[in-house]
Amino acid sequence: MNDNKNIASRPVLPEPSLRRLPWYLAYLRMLDNQHVEYVSSTQISKELNVDASQIAKDLSFLNIKGKTRIGYEVSTLVKELVDFLGFKKKHNAVVIGTGSLGGALMQDVGLAQYGLNIVAGFDVNNQLIGTSICGIPIYDINELAERQKEYNVAIAILTVPVEHSQEVADTAIRAGIKAIWNFTPFRIKAPANIVIANTSIYAHLAIIYNRMINNH
Amino acid sequence: MNDNKNIASRPVLPEPSLRRLPWYLAYLRMLDNQHVEYVSSTQISKELNVDASQIAKDLSFLNIKGKTRIGYEVSTLVKELVDFLGFKKKHNAVVIGTGSLGGALMQDVGLAQYGLNIVAGFDVNNQLIGTSICGIPIYDINELAERQKEYNVAIAILTVPVEHSQEVADTAIRAGIKAIWNFTPFRIKAPANIVIANTSIYAHLAIIYNRMINNH
Repeated sequence: MNDNKNIASRPVLPEPSLRRLPWYLAYLRMLDNQHVEYVSSTQISKELNVDASQIAKDLSFLNIKGKTRIGYEVSTLVKELVDFLGFKKKHNAVVIGTGSLGGALMQDVGLAQYGLNIVAGFDVNNQLIGTSICGIPIYDINELAERQKEYNVAIAILTVPVEHSQEVADTAIRAGIKAIWNFTPFRIKAPANIVIANTSIYAHLAIIYNRMINNH
Repeated sequence: MNDNKNIASRPVLPEPSLRRLPWYLAYLRMLDNQHVEYVSSTQISKELNVDASQIAKDLSFLNIKGKTRIGYEVSTLVKELVDFLGFKKKHNAVVIGTGSLGGALMQDVGLAQYGLNIVAGFDVNNQLIGTSICGIPIYDINELAERQKEYNVAIAILTVPVEHSQEVADTAIRAGIKAIWNFTPFRIKAPANIVIANTSIYAHLAIIYNRMINNH
């Protein structure tokens, strides 16, 4: 018998499955708002253009079972997905680089609904240090290590100018940050135990522009 | 001879290559700021963890050639990439849903630097209609078709509540929009000639939370 079994009781979901779960959640929430009680994987499949057997497999990682010929209970599945995806917990985060994009994220109430609790911003600009955005204080980047401990922060949202991204990421990791949500287009290098998620929104623009050219 | 050859003279870049180009650009801009004159694909490879031959292949789509043993001229490569990626042109866009995320994007000056020119916002909320954000007017969603013509807008940035995303996307397409940058977690359905790019930032949070659990 393997003693680790109880400790690591949560099954590791393959990342493509994990990426699909928020799509299911979005659709199920809509059904829930429309007071739909049950949904089958075939119905979800038709709506989202994902293979029904794949959906059943993805959802098998959750603590819920569909009923034959009826399907999944919508409201229960919504709750299970929200829980599984970690949106119900509060994850403390800081924004590093409180310029236009960083400041915008500090103002976005949507993030809190998805479990992200931004507790502080950091900058090098003396005009911003000491001020606040939506009640969230902005500190000097030099205070990062100290504040990380004070607020018990695991996630740093990186919205600095691209030329500083690696250096600031290194500072954040030294300060005890466990995950970096990188909004810069720079490929951050980090030790394997640090989570790096890239959301380089400007790069998506290139894809839109290019597809538009090829569509004509 | 094929007469279309001159019209469609731009080679169609495979999308994985297109996704890598902004990484190269970010790194090259950094080198350019440091007044580095030449860079080899081997150097880029080491820095970005992409195979050197892949980099050479990706860059072969651009109107630039590296020199043997010297590499690419950094400043020229930056210019070519900016041009190729469409960041130098002005692409008119509207934001549909001017709540916290939509409003935040309207305030983000970074988007303009990547060729996105947000000319108007649209909402259903009477408290927002008639106001403006950073000088960008907010109109009633019912005026979308009319304003699309007035401003000659091709791109709609979709930041509405998830339950309205499909319906609003349909409205935008009827109004003449050619591309939808979808920030909602809903999988929009659209005709094949419409470009859909998904940037569902909240879904990325699920990936961060999940990886953090598995890293411990």
